[in-house]
Amino acid sequence: MTDTPAANFLSDPFDDDKLREECGVYGVFGMDEAANFVALGLHALQHRGQEAAGIVSYTPDTGFNTVRRLGYVRDHFTKQSVMDILPGRMAIGHTRYSTAGSKGQTALRDVQPLYADFAMGGCAIAHNGNITNADALRSQLIDRGSIFQSASDTECIVHLMARSIQKNIPDRMKDALRIVEGAFSVIAMTRSKLIGVRDPMGVRPLVLGRRGEGWILSSETCALDIIGAEFVREIEPGEMVIITSSGLESLRPFEDRDPRFCVFEYVYFSRPDSVIGGLSVYEARRRIGVELAREAPVEADLVCPVPDSGTPAAIGFSQASGIPYAMGIIKNQYVGRTFIQPGDAIRHMGVRLKHNANRRSIEGRRVVLVDDSIVRGTTSQKIVQMVRDAGAKEVHMRIASPPTRASCFYGVDTPEKAKLLASRMSVEEMADFIRVDSLGFLTIEGLYRAVGMAARDAEAPQFCDACFSGQYPTRLLDVEGADNVRTLSWLASGGQ
Amino acid sequence: MTDTPAANFLSDPFDDDKLREECGVYGVFGMDEAANFVALGLHALQHRGQEAAGIVSYTPDTGFNTVRRLGYVRDHFTKQSVMDILPGRMAIGHTRYSTAGSKGQTALRDVQPLYADFAMGGCAIAHNGNITNADALRSQLIDRGSIFQSASDTECIVHLMARSIQKNIPDRMKDALRIVEGAFSVIAMTRSKLIGVRDPMGVRPLVLGRRGEGWILSSETCALDIIGAEFVREIEPGEMVIITSSGLESLRPFEDRDPRFCVFEYVYFSRPDSVIGGLSVYEARRRIGVELAREAPVEADLVCPVPDSGTPAAIGFSQASGIPYAMGIIKNQYVGRTFIQPGDAIRHMGVRLKHNANRRSIEGRRVVLVDDSIVRGTTSQKIVQMVRDAGAKEVHMRIASPPTRASCFYGVDTPEKAKLLASRMSVEEMADFIRVDSLGFLTIEGLYRAVGMAARDAEAPQFCDACFSGQYPTRLLDVEGADNVRTLSWLASGGQ
Amino acid sequence: MTDTPAANFLSDPFDDDKLREECGVYGVFGMDEAANFVALGLHALQHRGQEAAGIVSYTPDTGFNTVRRLGYVRDHFTKQSVMDILPGRMAIGHTRYSTAGSKGQTALRDVQPLYADFAMGGCAIAHNGNITNADALRSQLIDRGSIFQSASDTECIVHLMARSIQKNIPDRMKDALRIVEGAFSVIAMTRSKLIGVRDPMGVRPLVLGRRGEGWILSSETCALDIIGAEFVREIEPGEMVIITSSGLESLRPFEDRDPRFCVFEYVYFSRPDSVIGGLSVYEARRRIGVELAREAPVEADLVCPVPDSGTPAAIGFSQASGIPYAMGIIKNQYVGRTFIQPGDAIRHMGVRLKHNANRRSIEGRRVVLVDDSIVRGTTSQKIVQMVRDAGAKEVHMRIASPPTRASCFYGVDTPEKAKLLASRMSVEEMADFIRVDSLGFLTIEGLYRAVGMAARDAEAPQFCDACFSGQYPTRLLDVEGADNVRTLSWLASGGQ
Amino acid sequence: MTDTPAANFLSDPFDDDKLREECGVYGVFGMDEAANFVALGLHALQHRGQEAAGIVSYTPDTGFNTVRRLGYVRDHFTKQSVMDILPGRMAIGHTRYSTAGSKGQTALRDVQPLYADFAMGGCAIAHNGNITNADALRSQLIDRGSIFQSASDTECIVHLMARSIQKNIPDRMKDALRIVEGAFSVIAMTRSKLIGVRDPMGVRPLVLGRRGEGWILSSETCALDIIGAEFVREIEPGEMVIITSSGLESLRPFEDRDPRFCVFEYVYFSRPDSVIGGLSVYEARRRIGVELAREAPVEADLVCPVPDSGTPAAIGFSQASGIPYAMGIIKNQYVGRTFIQPGDAIRHMGVRLKHNANRRSIEGRRVVLVDDSIVRGTTSQKIVQMVRDAGAKEVHMRIASPPTRASCFYGVDTPEKAKLLASRMSVEEMADFIRVDSLGFLTIEGLYRAVGMAARDAEAPQFCDACFSGQYPTRLLDVEGADNVRTLSWLASGGQ
Repeated sequence: MTDTPAANFLSDPFDDDKLREECGVYGVFGMDEAANFVALGLHALQHRGQEAAGIVSYTPDTGFNTVRRLGYVRDHFTKQSVMDILPGRMAIGHTRYSTAGSKGQTALRDVQPLYADFAMGGCAIAHNGNITNADALRSQLIDRGSIFQSASDTECIVHLMARSIQKNIPDRMKDALRIVEGAFSVIAMTRSKLIGVRDPMGVRPLVLGRRGEGWILSSETCALDIIGAEFVREIEPGEMVIITSSGLESLRPFEDRDPRFCVFEYVYFSRPDSVIGGLSVYEARRRIGVELAREAPVEADLVCPVPDSGTPAAIGFSQASGIPYAMGIIKNQYVGRTFIQPGDAIRHMGVRLKHNANRRSIEGRRVVLVDDSIVRGTTSQKIVQMVRDAGAKEVHMRIASPPTRASCFYGVDTPEKAKLLASRMSVEEMADFIRVDSLGFLTIEGLYRAVGMAARDAEAPQFCDACFSGQYPTRLLDVEGADNVRTLSWLASGGQ
Repeated sequence: MTDTPAANFLSDPFDDDKLREECGVYGVFGMDEAANFVALGLHALQHRGQEAAGIVSYTPDTGFNTVRRLGYVRDHFTKQSVMDILPGRMAIGHTRYSTAGSKGQTALRDVQPLYADFAMGGCAIAHNGNITNADALRSQLIDRGSIFQSASDTECIVHLMARSIQKNIPDRMKDALRIVEGAFSVIAMTRSKLIGVRDPMGVRPLVLGRRGEGWILSSETCALDIIGAEFVREIEPGEMVIITSSGLESLRPFEDRDPRFCVFEYVYFSRPDSVIGGLSVYEARRRIGVELAREAPVEADLVCPVPDSGTPAAIGFSQASGIPYAMGIIKNQYVGRTFIQPGDAIRHMGVRLKHNANRRSIEGRRVVLVDDSIVRGTTSQKIVQMVRDAGAKEVHMRIASPPTRASCFYGVDTPEKAKLLASRMSVEEMADFIRVDSLGFLTIEGLYRAVGMAARDAEAPQFCDACFSGQYPTRLLDVEGADNVRTLSWLASGGQ
Repeated sequence: MTDTPAANFLSDPFDDDKLREECGVYGVFGMDEAANFVALGLHALQHRGQEAAGIVSYTPDTGFNTVRRLGYVRDHFTKQSVMDILPGRMAIGHTRYSTAGSKGQTALRDVQPLYADFAMGGCAIAHNGNITNADALRSQLIDRGSIFQSASDTECIVHLMARSIQKNIPDRMKDALRIVEGAFSVIAMTRSKLIGVRDPMGVRPLVLGRRGEGWILSSETCALDIIGAEFVREIEPGEMVIITSSGLESLRPFEDRDPRFCVFEYVYFSRPDSVIGGLSVYEARRRIGVELAREAPVEADLVCPVPDSGTPAAIGFSQASGIPYAMGIIKNQYVGRTFIQPGDAIRHMGVRLKHNANRRSIEGRRVVLVDDSIVRGTTSQKIVQMVRDAGAKEVHMRIASPPTRASCFYGVDTPEKAKLLASRMSVEEMADFIRVDSLGFLTIEGLYRAVGMAARDAEAPQFCDACFSGQYPTRLLDVEGADNVRTLSWLASGGQ
Repeated sequence: MTDTPAANFLSDPFDDDKLREECGVYGVFGMDEAANFVALGLHALQHRGQEAAGIVSYTPDTGFNTVRRLGYVRDHFTKQSVMDILPGRMAIGHTRYSTAGSKGQTALRDVQPLYADFAMGGCAIAHNGNITNADALRSQLIDRGSIFQSASDTECIVHLMARSIQKNIPDRMKDALRIVEGAFSVIAMTRSKLIGVRDPMGVRPLVLGRRGEGWILSSETCALDIIGAEFVREIEPGEMVIITSSGLESLRPFEDRDPRFCVFEYVYFSRPDSVIGGLSVYEARRRIGVELAREAPVEADLVCPVPDSGTPAAIGFSQASGIPYAMGIIKNQYVGRTFIQPGDAIRHMGVRLKHNANRRSIEGRRVVLVDDSIVRGTTSQKIVQMVRDAGAKEVHMRIASPPTRASCFYGVDTPEKAKLLASRMSVEEMADFIRVDSLGFLTIEGLYRAVGMAARDAEAPQFCDACFSGQYPTRLLDVEGADNVRTLSWLASGGQ
């Protein structure tokens, strides 16, 4: 069912072959013009989702006010006419990248925050992550009379809350989140509360900030900086914080588990100016480059990043190897939508819309290209070809992460496993496929060292690294198709 | 909660003071490009609702496809790009005028047809009428975990269906419609069926048509004419028809009641070229004019309609009285939106945007103005003044219906009773208020005669004439605030 | 050269076969928020041109401000954001119907008022009419270095003014208008003056009004009424009025000629509530109906107008003949754009979008249809068929003007002569073509009587009736292709 | 006079204080779908002008077709509906940055290419540069009857061409360009020719490329690369090339002068992947960084570019100094429009929308910031403050060009001289103003060395470096207000 035509999204040829974070969340409590701050915060989190954005604000006078739009934050939430319908001192927001299946088909009704009227009042919810038993829950809820309005897994949380017999919204949220499985960092807003929850393993980030008397919840610290807010601490795995005008209350509604933060947040998802676990993402990436130069050295004349995500690792690689750093690929800062390809086709037009080889610097040189990861390998092929066409004598590719071999089910858009280049080729075959003189990946141990661990604990890895290792930290109910015994029984007994 | 800013609606100064039909419904089964036919049908029903329109179509390939938009049918459903997303041989549509409370605030989510995924498949529903126990039902449903997405009373029907334990959609619809009270003509579409239902009193119209092998359900016959379809018969009060590829099945799911069709459909709502109960609406109005000339004669030089709704009655009045018919008020065919009033205010600018007195014809004459009804009287004041400013020697107003004294709760937007001029003034006071030399209304008996009855049955009126008589054909649960015992017990026992 | 895509214009099936006035003009001097008044005036003149509209205002602070848009006046000039860029106490406006050739292709650059910076200051010009030596002038001006920006004949006036050696704008305008031939009612605005000029024969209308201290120039009186202004007098044929803060000055820059006002303004172009030459247009049309009943009587049961333009004549016909007046054709007040025709085509869909036969009134009756004119005859065919399909026993067509036999070159969009039905068929053949039982036209003498003349002066007709008689009041230079000796010599001697 | 509201332009806080190139030009001859290639070329030249873009194409069938729009190339020229109205094998385009005075007020009519119909056919013209006697020419042309449609200096060229008595367009263009003074790289298109001209000093760039049988003219080589075209050579200063189906003809219509290419194209305007005079712009900038490290050394821990324009020079500075290169400032790749500043103002919100300090890398370090230039100094202040707020121990600023002391009159938007920081402060005062521990500029000799000159010729500088030196290569007629004797006499004698 199509309700609204999808926006035309940017065709970013260099990013076609990246894993995609699906969401960023942001909430503000106790600050005048809260929605304006949320708009700024979401702009700083735009890299976590570019297809749509939404903000819900609340005032006692107007109740809950929602604006949800396809497109960038800046396309809508910069207009006075839009912000005028979002008054109040509380607001939450969400920025979204849809999953692969519905790409280019995002319906407005799938855009978050979602909103529901419960008997005790309204509640808006925004979610970063993925619920791995959403399909099973959905079919049971529909059987019992729930009407779903969206394809979003987040709506399961809302319907579970609607059926909880608890008398207040935080307790209903606990009921609901104890049933869902997977990865979630959730921000919710009631008429008097801002609520933040992280799943027991803390797969997705969520941080707490302050600005004067106000409180902020954000996916990353860079979105605290943009509004001049102070970083307080991370919300802990399994923690629920409830912020009211009386202050912050911290609860622990879940059974304890070992944390498993997503290591790919360091590799690619988070912004380099964010700080996670006390470590700057930029510095983590530079150290990855240093490790990579040690693990996969090569003789060459220049180290060139594949812009922009390869840049910090390329700087580290240059520093560790002593090979001069250079901009061998120049990025067009005016990102292109899909221009019309003339009939007389332009070779690698997609790549050229956004980048150009710096021919005079590359010509006749041995070039090391540093990129963050290889997913399908299709874009790497084009970049390598562009660099060769510009006259490079040798092209060596160094990748700032281990081979990406397995799909992610925790809120990242990964192709199915069979399309991951590393799942079906050896490193040598991959080197042939992308036509480089040599190809080197960082080891998983090197990655753990770069992010500050002495070593990876193979039995109980300190991070979720399933995309590299295939070791998933939860069962994958919807994928496995098993019966969801726990859910059924709860719905049968306590819920409605 | 505001999701989408409302469209700017036409400011139609002459129509500011009319009662408003809230909806028109239209459905097509078994015709190629069904949605194109529905668009045409809705265009012919545009007078029944101008704020928004929606169409849902179905094909096995694409499933249910929905487009819902604020504005006129012609604004959206004439575009190939829009119609392309509505393929298939079945489609239903709706055109909507929102209730007074939310005027100018219509959210897209209130626009019909509504759609829901049930366990046995999807269902789209469009509704003309009003459910008089909707508030009571809504609060019970929310208590039990239903999440409402709109302010529409129609959504109660959908949630009741979701909670029914029947195994197919028509049976669920019966369950639901036996619980709701009030006036409803409902069209629904499943993957294989087109369903039409009229409430037991048949307050709102619904007719059946054929075009080749195809079936059509429509609020009025004029929307059969536009597509060249043949009128078959009216859906009877209390009847449910289920149209499938095997043909039409007629059911009687409700207890029998005496029919009470809305007599105001003859007076104003329906289009003059529609036929209801075998009587052309134009002819009914002309006969009303004839009755009016008999009941409220006057000596004058000219009979002038207040365009456009007073025209047929003015023709009848002229024929019965022998006073020449003339266009004393000229309508600007280019209907105006709200132009900006200059600071040096224009007297009665609103009226002048749409009409102008035909000064040379009126000057020095005794003029009879014929209008269909008086609601608040504010517009009548302005028209009379405009005619006086143009030099009329005398102005006599004749109204083609009895005084409108009571609110409607069956799908018509009426002001609260205290704002109805006739509820707080005698005819003489009203004449003073609108500054006419004489004022005459049709009697309720005259109205019954004009629409073909020998006499009105005072105990059991043959029509719903509550707006004139105050005799409501049902209890008014939401208005009275009584307990809804029947509903509660059903939800407690059989439903979920 | 296409600069901006044309708007989608209304497809008005009943009006497809009408002659089209090409323009309405309106100017305001000495009134606060002048542009708001102009917007209202243009709305009242919308019937004179629906494709585009423009307003230029002037203030000493902001200079000349222009907004020109494709579409209706109400589509743009009702928005505060648009009106905010049109400040000042002087403004002129224009509403435009493009000529047949460029229909649907109106470029924004052809929309008036035109504006030019002369050495002595800016000047905005709006023009109703047509210049019959525009092509010849254009080619000479280009040869001498003028650069044309539009296809509008009005631009010739502007370039002639630019090349005049006179020191002030009114004198330059006199120079220019003495060179152009044809029909023109021109409104111009400089930094301190509002200027109005009518060509020596006064083919197109132009009237003067007052509102308080302010002055108004308008194509018709109906646009004085809308703003509550008082009608002062008509601008006389060959008169130039210059309005400044010191008052109104009247000049006579042209050689005297006998006036030849366009008689078709009475028949169809002007609004029925306008007054021309002391005669109300409505009354003229009603009298035409009376004459028509005398000249072309018929036995019948009903007289039905073809709405809306046939209505006053039908009323007159009914009064003179005693045959009852009825609405046999009902108009959908929600004018349709072009809806998408389903593959299973709807017969006469175009006609049905806007009108429907009132079947119950027509069935079995002998019907007289009254229409204002027949151009190509295509729409008449469809209307007659619709009335026959509704069961009329006989259909008689009576036309409220003489047969339209010749093209207009004075600002009206007429098809080329060969496409005019009356230029290639006898009345009998026309009756067969449109399939009526009888067909009658008004005689040209009857028309002159209806508009108040004792008789038509065949040598020197009192009106321009070239479309009926073929007697053109000027030579037609561009059509004839003759040399434009007068122009050449002027450009060679005095101008630049 | 305002015709169309201006687009909302990006508020790019780091770029607020840059000099602005006003235009990029691009033309294609003899390639199918020429306009699609031009759209790509203009996208690659987007850095030369972001406010508006236009394309004119030509086919014998449709004539000249124009689309001109406010906004980015990608906003309009990626749509099939737009490109469909630009058919043909020839097209030229323009991308524009308006001058300071009309910023945010760009009227559509100022957007190029301009188009004019001459007696011998149409001609479209696009211009990069600035005509220094445009005001004088304009006033003379208006005196003689020319009507200007825009505020663009380019329109003078068009009117001079219209008044030339030459019989063909190239000869008229020679006539016109011999009269104008200043800097210009012009591309023009007639029905059969693509014409390129560079002013005698060659101030603005223009290069020639080939792709198969087709020819390309472009401001920079990077726009050849994007379509896979081959660089042939630069159009020489004072050269006119005329490309027809018979090939390329090279003319020399002007008196010889010493070339004075704009040296700021190397410093900032041109894209780093372009090649000018055989030298890659990236390499020139890296060498500037090397020179700067030699001329203005400093002890520090990190060299950080002010992104993006300072990056190549920072790399060179790091290489020459041995101080590690780091990303101390992280750019948000999602460029922000002007978000709404909450009442509780965010310090340096403008800067933060686009950038963030990389706090963990900077904290406690001595940082060298490398930027390309300082204009007003306002943005430098904010950046330095942001870096200090992030904990830098020392901040040293190094500028990759000499102090900018004088305005440019050759097609670059510079503030008036009094607003240039370097025109009113010593280097020490500037260091205080922007609050750095030290400030160093490149010398003008260092700049000449970096771009490959042995030394600057003080008498006859090899480049136009007027913005640094104040030595203007032409007289500045409009600025000086002197009489334009040469123009007058020509107009009086030969022209019309």
